[in-house]
Amino acid sequence: MKHRYELQLRYSDSDQMGVVYHANYFSFFELGRTAMLREHGIDYYDIERRGFMFPVRDVDCTYLKPITLGEQIFCETELVELTKVKIVFEHKLLDQAGEIKAIGHSSIVAVRKDDFRIIRMDEHLPDVFALKDI
Amino acid sequence: MKHRYELQLRYSDSDQMGVVYHANYFSFFELGRTAMLREHGIDYYDIERRGFMFPVRDVDCTYLKPITLGEQIFCETELVELTKVKIVFEHKLLDQAGEIKAIGHSSIVAVRKDDFRIIRMDEHLPDVFALKDI
Amino acid sequence: MKHRYELQLRYSDSDQMGVVYHANYFSFFELGRTAMLREHGIDYYDIERRGFMFPVRDVDCTYLKPITLGEQIFCETELVELTKVKIVFEHKLLDQAGEIKAIGHSSIVAVRKDDFRIIRMDEHLPDVFALKDI
Amino acid sequence: MKHRYELQLRYSDSDQMGVVYHANYFSFFELGRTAMLREHGIDYYDIERRGFMFPVRDVDCTYLKPITLGEQIFCETELVELTKVKIVFEHKLLDQAGEIKAIGHSSIVAVRKDDFRIIRMDEHLPDVFALKDI
Repeated sequence: MKHRYELQLRYSDSDQMGVVYHANYFSFFELGRTAMLREHGIDYYDIERRGFMFPVRDVDCTYLKPITLGEQIFCETELVELTKVKIVFEHKLLDQAGEIKAIGHSSIVAVRKDDFRIIRMDEHLPDVFALKDI
Repeated sequence: MKHRYELQLRYSDSDQMGVVYHANYFSFFELGRTAMLREHGIDYYDIERRGFMFPVRDVDCTYLKPITLGEQIFCETELVELTKVKIVFEHKLLDQAGEIKAIGHSSIVAVRKDDFRIIRMDEHLPDVFALKDI
Repeated sequence: MKHRYELQLRYSDSDQMGVVYHANYFSFFELGRTAMLREHGIDYYDIERRGFMFPVRDVDCTYLKPITLGEQIFCETELVELTKVKIVFEHKLLDQAGEIKAIGHSSIVAVRKDDFRIIRMDEHLPDVFALKDI
Repeated sequence: MKHRYELQLRYSDSDQMGVVYHANYFSFFELGRTAMLREHGIDYYDIERRGFMFPVRDVDCTYLKPITLGEQIFCETELVELTKVKIVFEHKLLDQAGEIKAIGHSSIVAVRKDDFRIIRMDEHLPDVFALKDI
């Protein structure tokens, strides 16, 4: 189950090395996984309105090739693990020729909006938990 | 009543022109006016906890000289107008030699956090409204 | 000559007021005018490769309604002035229903990449200068 | 050899969860390691002027507690590995009470500015390579 999403790069994404600043890749990864969830019927902003949020617990990224403004870049997202309390995604950034620019992972947990307490998705977010079967 | 605040520039502030990206100046202006209010005993985050916020209504900026990472930059803030519903600030960014890099203005209004409705500061935020006499 | 461009909002665009942070609007305006120039055959990144850049000289923005993540937002760009040394754009951000969220302006100048010296577009960037006739 | 640096948080760092957006931590880590190098006599911007850059090769971060605007946050940086081609840093973000908010790592490589080719620091950047003995 891989999902592909084209990114809209901004001038503000660049830094004085002349390439996209490395921290922004995590913002791209989030665009990718939000789009993937939406394709499976899960609206992240609706989940927030229901009183839950998905803060990030762990992330990593390996930078293989720099990204330059003007390139067409896609974020490919794959759900690699889903437990009662955690979702792990793998993210790849690729150019139009399919060359991989970066590979990263994000591990997110579901929490209650009020107090940031971790909740069980099988109980509180069954629609999200059902993603484990896709 | 001018307030001076030294900025901490970040690598992510730069763009591929090799200078600080122009939109970030408004983030600096906000650092400046928050620091100025704090010096007058007004904690912006405390105001949010009391149920009010200060969204921006109008801003402008004239860019005179580029800012380069490694420069020591100060934000000078001046309160130029304060009415029952609005505060207007003038912001200058200067380097260590006093050269002016940019001049801008922000006009902020006080609103209720729940519904973004404009409120009267003389009624709901008397400590902020009292700034008109400094 | 109005150009319309759909923005890709990011989670990182939001702030703790729960709306899109005001400084980011200028990044959106830049997306809008870059897309507009591209539609008229002018590739901004190619201009940089030719040794010129378009730093911003003046900007302003009036914020009418907050923008919330999940909204579909368009940047409408109009070229309002073009002289030998300057281009002025008007930018509007609108939602899908056509409600105007913000109106702003950017005035950009063409400079040489090496020394940030202003150049005459009729001499050095005739393709850009020709936009005055559209 | 641990280095401690106080961060200047910005309103733009927050997101609609009401906490500092996770990608920004990597911008903080970079502030921390740049300040640490500066304390050891190495000016990062001077290295760029000499024709070299330090792009990031790998990063990771574990988020332990959210960071809220208004908190006093420090970035503690430690050099954990230095070879001829690579420097690895460990970064901790802590509050005033010493509570650890996040732990991360950055692995940076030295490259030539023109072509992003990896260079040997013992040959081209002996002052940086000498950090291995501190």
